[in-house]
Amino acid sequence: MEQYLGIPDEDFIRSKVPMTKQEIRILTLVKAQIPVDGVVWDIGAGTGSLSIEAARLCPKGKVWAVERSEQAVALLRVNIANLAAPNVGIVEKEAPDGLDILPDPDRVLIGGSGGHIEDILDAVSRRLKPGGRILINSVTVQTVYRAVEWLRAHEKEFRYEGIQAQISRLSQVRGYDMLRAENPVSILMAIRNP
Amino acid sequence: MEQYLGIPDEDFIRSKVPMTKQEIRILTLVKAQIPVDGVVWDIGAGTGSLSIEAARLCPKGKVWAVERSEQAVALLRVNIANLAAPNVGIVEKEAPDGLDILPDPDRVLIGGSGGHIEDILDAVSRRLKPGGRILINSVTVQTVYRAVEWLRAHEKEFRYEGIQAQISRLSQVRGYDMLRAENPVSILMAIRNP
Amino acid sequence: MEQYLGIPDEDFIRSKVPMTKQEIRILTLVKAQIPVDGVVWDIGAGTGSLSIEAARLCPKGKVWAVERSEQAVALLRVNIANLAAPNVGIVEKEAPDGLDILPDPDRVLIGGSGGHIEDILDAVSRRLKPGGRILINSVTVQTVYRAVEWLRAHEKEFRYEGIQAQISRLSQVRGYDMLRAENPVSILMAIRNP
Amino acid sequence: MEQYLGIPDEDFIRSKVPMTKQEIRILTLVKAQIPVDGVVWDIGAGTGSLSIEAARLCPKGKVWAVERSEQAVALLRVNIANLAAPNVGIVEKEAPDGLDILPDPDRVLIGGSGGHIEDILDAVSRRLKPGGRILINSVTVQTVYRAVEWLRAHEKEFRYEGIQAQISRLSQVRGYDMLRAENPVSILMAIRNP
Repeated sequence: MEQYLGIPDEDFIRSKVPMTKQEIRILTLVKAQIPVDGVVWDIGAGTGSLSIEAARLCPKGKVWAVERSEQAVALLRVNIANLAAPNVGIVEKEAPDGLDILPDPDRVLIGGSGGHIEDILDAVSRRLKPGGRILINSVTVQTVYRAVEWLRAHEKEFRYEGIQAQISRLSQVRGYDMLRAENPVSILMAIRNP
Repeated sequence: MEQYLGIPDEDFIRSKVPMTKQEIRILTLVKAQIPVDGVVWDIGAGTGSLSIEAARLCPKGKVWAVERSEQAVALLRVNIANLAAPNVGIVEKEAPDGLDILPDPDRVLIGGSGGHIEDILDAVSRRLKPGGRILINSVTVQTVYRAVEWLRAHEKEFRYEGIQAQISRLSQVRGYDMLRAENPVSILMAIRNP
Repeated sequence: MEQYLGIPDEDFIRSKVPMTKQEIRILTLVKAQIPVDGVVWDIGAGTGSLSIEAARLCPKGKVWAVERSEQAVALLRVNIANLAAPNVGIVEKEAPDGLDILPDPDRVLIGGSGGHIEDILDAVSRRLKPGGRILINSVTVQTVYRAVEWLRAHEKEFRYEGIQAQISRLSQVRGYDMLRAENPVSILMAIRNP
Repeated sequence: MEQYLGIPDEDFIRSKVPMTKQEIRILTLVKAQIPVDGVVWDIGAGTGSLSIEAARLCPKGKVWAVERSEQAVALLRVNIANLAAPNVGIVEKEAPDGLDILPDPDRVLIGGSGGHIEDILDAVSRRLKPGGRILINSVTVQTVYRAVEWLRAHEKEFRYEGIQAQISRLSQVRGYDMLRAENPVSILMAIRNP
């Protein structure tokens, strides 16, 4: 078994599109517990760093990267090619649009919601398989609140937990190791009842 | 492929022995990139949370948990039994004592150094295989500095990087989700030249 | 000029009532820019650490500590006596109840809102003087969101800024200095238009 | 009494010289407890944000800004003029050079040590008045360690405490409030025995 997680950030082409950093990808994908033959939706896929790393965890499954931005989709295609991720499919739509045509998911990753987080969660909850998981990454006060409130309103179907992760990197500058902060990210993980 | 990482903290018996938290285990073990047939030394293994989770990543390999405290070793045995980790061996010694008899490692995890970090790194560097990795977790000003200085003094053999990770957990208290902080942990990752 | 800020945490009696920590008090009170003769409301005053420290900044003014819990009010009285803060008055009510009888404030500190943050902000905004400031401390996803949304809905009257502060303390344990985390706190500061 | 602390970051001209951020200045200066007629040395003064804010706390005293970089000193002069801080004097030297000619300090702020932290602390300890305080800000693994070790080696003369502060700012981006991290800063505070 080779290891599937831990692609370095610099292996992704990102231009100026924001990208989920390595440590956040790792924590998100381990908490997702992706099945080897799983169907994964990655909503707001951006440059695809999460999609591509997820795809390595389900070599017998498929990851659907849903992304509205043409610019991001172009980078996504390049990254899929560079990192040889044949089991990533692209849906160039703004979720929840575009989800109808996809197979029911085992796991849903939500990295960007374009202000539609409740609509996306409604659409996802109609399709997510029993025991399935939703992972929501957020860097804003609003999205984490709205996701939490949606989960609380659906507590009969879902249980959830969450963290805020703040990572600083040691940057070697001459004789010193300086701490450089990455922005804090909230990671919510919801499990649908079996 | 089932997933190997992500054991919940509550699955480990810990009594009052400090334990590496789930998120730190995940980040440490992904950055370690443990080979499936690898030999891993876990120095300052404590209750064994890192050893046991590492052992799942090298089912054809072996993890050697080195721990000086009798109390911790007792818990380690219970956790190995509870979580069915047959490929974890215990060395009840204070490292660098006890390392001589072990096979050369592919990966070394250092979670506790008992004030001997340089001696441990010296001993490890005599035995670590080319391309091997050392992961050092630290919660003190002293250990992270001393480890960094050792690595800087051995820059011809090793390159390193590091992060400080500060995780807060959402705690659901009635209608609220409150952020509860875990202590910041430094994670250093050193790679021996191939 | 003696210095007015920076009372050590251990100077307050707190029993098991949660207390705003020194660093958060300092940041909150400096951002509040309390006038020497100002009227300050401290809503959800708890053990009074913020009220008492605020009172030192307005020796010619008055701080009104509004607190619903009998247990907290008892501690508040002890702390006021111990730390000689004659210009702190106590209102044993659950805000917004109890605010009617108070003089119009120059500054309002909100440390606890008991789920009534919008009601409190509505009541405060009817009374706060032009150019006045509101400081809101929060440790939950919900309160920071609800306060921010209220402020956004009143953007013609108020501008705001905010931080999240995460403090870790160096704890000297034998030969080591270990980082011990305090919970992250959000500090919102809103200024009413002059 | 007007309030002396809390100058906004944007009031300082900084070009590309690194500057201590507002929250760190506030915490540092409150912990320093600067006497109104105190003599303050600010070593590694950079653009002078700490010197100028300290100067407001000692209107009957004097702040000596020690800075080796010509570029920083130029900015320092502009900031002193812009913010009307007549009681800041400039020493264009690399500390510990230049300290000999200064009056004995009540407080010493060390924001930059250029790799000479022990030499600076040795020089400072020969001159600091009884009961005086040293505040050391650091963003590197090395400086915080070396300062802590020096303080531990001088524990008969000094007691110390420390924090690491990590501040994130809410950035209002359209309908969202996003957390943007500032780098973590260690703040050590040492008090000389009376």
